[in-house]
Amino acid sequence: MSTEDIFDARILESIEGLLDDLLSPENPISASGLVRIYDAMRYSALAGGKRLRPYLTVASADLFGVSRTYSVRAGCAIELVHCYSLIHDDLPAMDNSDLRRGHPTSHIAYDDATAILAGDGLLTEAFAVLASAETHPDAGVRTTLVSQLAAAAGASGMVGGQMMDILAETGVAEAEDVELLQSLKTGALIRVSCRFGGYLAEANEDHIMAVDTFAARLGLAFQITDDLLDVSGSEASTGKPVGRDAANQKPTFVDLLGEAGAHKKAAQLICEAKDQLACFSTDIQPLTRIAEFILRRQA
Amino acid sequence: MSTEDIFDARILESIEGLLDDLLSPENPISASGLVRIYDAMRYSALAGGKRLRPYLTVASADLFGVSRTYSVRAGCAIELVHCYSLIHDDLPAMDNSDLRRGHPTSHIAYDDATAILAGDGLLTEAFAVLASAETHPDAGVRTTLVSQLAAAAGASGMVGGQMMDILAETGVAEAEDVELLQSLKTGALIRVSCRFGGYLAEANEDHIMAVDTFAARLGLAFQITDDLLDVSGSEASTGKPVGRDAANQKPTFVDLLGEAGAHKKAAQLICEAKDQLACFSTDIQPLTRIAEFILRRQA
Repeated sequence: MSTEDIFDARILESIEGLLDDLLSPENPISASGLVRIYDAMRYSALAGGKRLRPYLTVASADLFGVSRTYSVRAGCAIELVHCYSLIHDDLPAMDNSDLRRGHPTSHIAYDDATAILAGDGLLTEAFAVLASAETHPDAGVRTTLVSQLAAAAGASGMVGGQMMDILAETGVAEAEDVELLQSLKTGALIRVSCRFGGYLAEANEDHIMAVDTFAARLGLAFQITDDLLDVSGSEASTGKPVGRDAANQKPTFVDLLGEAGAHKKAAQLICEAKDQLACFSTDIQPLTRIAEFILRRQA
Repeated sequence: MSTEDIFDARILESIEGLLDDLLSPENPISASGLVRIYDAMRYSALAGGKRLRPYLTVASADLFGVSRTYSVRAGCAIELVHCYSLIHDDLPAMDNSDLRRGHPTSHIAYDDATAILAGDGLLTEAFAVLASAETHPDAGVRTTLVSQLAAAAGASGMVGGQMMDILAETGVAEAEDVELLQSLKTGALIRVSCRFGGYLAEANEDHIMAVDTFAARLGLAFQITDDLLDVSGSEASTGKPVGRDAANQKPTFVDLLGEAGAHKKAAQLICEAKDQLACFSTDIQPLTRIAEFILRRQA
């Protein structure tokens, strides 16, 4: 099964098209600093990538019959946050990565200052997108999206997880520490991506909990397969240097569980994720396919 | 006239108290990474400072009779953005400043990675504050605050201004370039601070324009007096190294207009700022006092 069978091309095109629109300055600009900052933001945000997070928002929103006009926008806001986090994580002061998705990272293509500012700009733009009436006609829904994304991305979520990750490089960790770290660093954003579908539909708490738990299991499985790829993948297929976790002495699920144990754990999590979808009477296949894809991904 | 005559101590106490509350994690934390990120955010955001921006929000909101419960929160969100911008601007990759408000900057007190993440966390928290129902009962007002702050702080505003500033270090600039740069780098946030007062009151467009123009003139005057202090101030009074602009070859208003010309321009701008307040029948004295203070400030 190729990725074409898993990801609906029309949804991916909508996501790419909207990201391009969102990162086009409203008024023509001539000042070289403004040209440069928009250029750097576009360089990182329009450089491909799986678009897993916005895709999850759209697929979750589809469960509730939400207009894709809204779900694509809400998902793209999350993708902007994801892109900002990659730029900052790749900086020399953090993970010091030169390559991302097969291209030089932002601070290599530009410089550290531009990369920091491009990240700041993308994060800020994410909230502008969510607050816009184009994202949902009900302002109450929009403030929920802003609150929930801020909680997932901030110091008690993704930013806190990255801080833990940096400290973890210097110490030995237990399985539950690695799980907490990953639940914050990558899990929080993946979970809010799915919950956005429910918020856009003003769905009931049970349904929102179901997509949230689906995403929590999926996100953890995704991280485990990421760790497995770091051990067994090639730079050509992953588009980024491999073997970095061991070189950085970062504790991973493969260290803790072994390769076979990590595979088994990921498979179990995907099984649990799919179970969560039983409460929906609408088409759950798009989300199921993503869950199964996570187990078999090569990049 | 001392600062006690200009700034109402009760408002300043409310601002300090709320910033402290906002940066206290909701649940007790034990993971060392989370302790560190909150510690770093608090280090920079609770280290004093004039609190000019939130004070302007409260004083502007007072013109319209807005409850201070709302205006202090909205103003503190802007202060969080201001604090994040200082942390990132001070980084070695940007202005490379070791001292701010008389204390070691974040990357000196912690390290570059922590400083980047603390800035990211503060920026994200600002939007969480604005989206919260505690900031205003009407969700439509809250989405306006989020949209307007994002526009002021993002790539077409403050972040774009900082990018221009970094590029400007390497070239010669004209007066209008310096004015555009400052209108984005510092002006946008000061203007939105005053407009927030109007948005919270759902004021008419004319009144919002009046406080916006007041703030635009005030902000430019503030930057000019900042440039003057960089030439004539002392490190002891300003709490940061002086003479940096010349060392960095940054174009300033003092370069362009001379010291006397810069003084004159600042005085004229403050005059224009005060004129904008003529349309209000409520007490304009708090804003007038700030405007006059800007001209005479020593730090």
